[in-house]
Amino acid sequence: MTPLRPTEFELIAKYFAPLSAPNAFGLLDDAAIVTPPAGHDLVITKDMLVAGIHFFEADPPEAIAAKALRVNLSDLAAKGATPLGFMLGLALPENWQPEWVERFATGLGYNIETYNCPLYGGDTVRASGGLTLSITAFGTVPTGKMVRRTTMQVGDSIYVSGTIGDSALGLKIRKSPNRANLQKQLKREESDYLLNRYLLPQPRVELSDAILRYASACMDVSDGFIGDLTKMLNANTLCLSLDAISIPLSKAAKNAVSVDPELLKLALTGGDDYELLVAVPPDDTQAFEQAVKKLQTPVKYLGVAKQAESVTLEIRDKKGLPIIFNTKSYTHF
Amino acid sequence: MTPLRPTEFELIAKYFAPLSAPNAFGLLDDAAIVTPPAGHDLVITKDMLVAGIHFFEADPPEAIAAKALRVNLSDLAAKGATPLGFMLGLALPENWQPEWVERFATGLGYNIETYNCPLYGGDTVRASGGLTLSITAFGTVPTGKMVRRTTMQVGDSIYVSGTIGDSALGLKIRKSPNRANLQKQLKREESDYLLNRYLLPQPRVELSDAILRYASACMDVSDGFIGDLTKMLNANTLCLSLDAISIPLSKAAKNAVSVDPELLKLALTGGDDYELLVAVPPDDTQAFEQAVKKLQTPVKYLGVAKQAESVTLEIRDKKGLPIIFNTKSYTHF
Repeated sequence: MTPLRPTEFELIAKYFAPLSAPNAFGLLDDAAIVTPPAGHDLVITKDMLVAGIHFFEADPPEAIAAKALRVNLSDLAAKGATPLGFMLGLALPENWQPEWVERFATGLGYNIETYNCPLYGGDTVRASGGLTLSITAFGTVPTGKMVRRTTMQVGDSIYVSGTIGDSALGLKIRKSPNRANLQKQLKREESDYLLNRYLLPQPRVELSDAILRYASACMDVSDGFIGDLTKMLNANTLCLSLDAISIPLSKAAKNAVSVDPELLKLALTGGDDYELLVAVPPDDTQAFEQAVKKLQTPVKYLGVAKQAESVTLEIRDKKGLPIIFNTKSYTHF
Repeated sequence: MTPLRPTEFELIAKYFAPLSAPNAFGLLDDAAIVTPPAGHDLVITKDMLVAGIHFFEADPPEAIAAKALRVNLSDLAAKGATPLGFMLGLALPENWQPEWVERFATGLGYNIETYNCPLYGGDTVRASGGLTLSITAFGTVPTGKMVRRTTMQVGDSIYVSGTIGDSALGLKIRKSPNRANLQKQLKREESDYLLNRYLLPQPRVELSDAILRYASACMDVSDGFIGDLTKMLNANTLCLSLDAISIPLSKAAKNAVSVDPELLKLALTGGDDYELLVAVPPDDTQAFEQAVKKLQTPVKYLGVAKQAESVTLEIRDKKGLPIIFNTKSYTHF
């Protein structure tokens, strides 16, 4: 017997209606009105998150809510879009508890406020297995100005925000039996940092304005730095040659890699970074660098996109030799 | 060992990109641009469908795709909205097969064409249990004209489209051991009809124009006729008194109920009807009836909403006595 739980409709009224946008009709309708302001396009993105795949079922409900919204906000930031709101699909496992939903809604509410991105509606159903979340988020850009993924040009400078690989290394620690091997060799604060980077992505929303103004192309690194950068380059038969050492790693990630050099490959292909890869045309690099200098998030210059001959993306080790990546990115199957 | 399957990205390129809208960038971006034409609002709705709950895992993939899109189109029709497009979240079970996805995409493509509602983007991931689908659909209405659920007024006439209860009875047949009891007592074509009404909802998109013009309120019957009509009435403390016999049932449903009168309660509360409940102000009833007369879908007048005293919705049997419904609608928990 499960304890007394609110019905589907009580649950929506109690936990989710308070988080809803003014034109979401208190979540009492089957639909919401989402209209971009005059002179703006609506940018829509959708990410699904599944227990055991995108997060651990035992993660704090607040963190699961945060991650579900933030991975979508990361996509919007990459498009130069300002968040407007989102729809939530929530498939709850058989044994869901009101306390869990309450904490989930609290975490969601906190992120809604932080990112000024209210709830417009959605659907709450029973899951067939573990918790499954589906968020469709929308933002606005001036008409015709959405920054695309596939529009990088020869001569554009390529930048990346923050640090790469923390999340993949954090996940590795989470998955180690008793979190033993890697964690033991790092300082406590370092492993905590990596674990936290996996648990709570930081969407780089503060970069979206500079991206909107200056970027020729952008995408967020969600499936792995190498694979995602390759996708961007491939779209226009471009290439980039890069010293591994020039890819920004956190102190914790650097220490992990110094303990086990093979972890570099994991860091560069593991995914869940939610950093932004930004291409900027030559005439705009100075203005872009100036604009992002004022922000908290570091943005690192990687190199200039060249016309591709054979290899799209070459990563060189300290000796100048190319590193071979058997897997370039995370793939669901 | 599973046979060779396409990767996540090959799968999107092969099966889903051909179904995508012109401004969905061939599904190569993380987001799409969805902008309503000038003078229009965008109406957004989201429904999740879970194997074993909203459909059977063994249902034809084409039918699962059709249902996932159609239940969302039903919501749009209830809002008076013209479909514009949708985002697809697809969580595939571990053992998914390319042939299944191919058939799913074929069915989806057929429905995209039928309803002129192209794919704008989405996300494909691994499911934690059975197949889980999440569709966010969007449509357009003239600015400020979305028909709401909670705006029925005293004196409005209430109508319902099509027939009620077919799907719940179809599901009952599906769930009977060997489909034995009920099916045996119906003609083959009758039980086939009921089974098909469960498998393939018919969104009443052809009514959306008359709803937009004349309705004061509307919702689609997805959780059960009694519960959904009660919700509409409750929003403004209205009531309706109704002879059960005046609720439209198909010939097959009538025969099922004559075999077992208790099935009437299932028919009126079972859900998955995807018929529309429409409220129309007194001045517009004639024009509304005229407009829908030309359409294929029958629309039946139920009665006039009155100021509620105690009971919101009273359904009377042949003797004029109120029927007691212990459960008013389907609820996930």
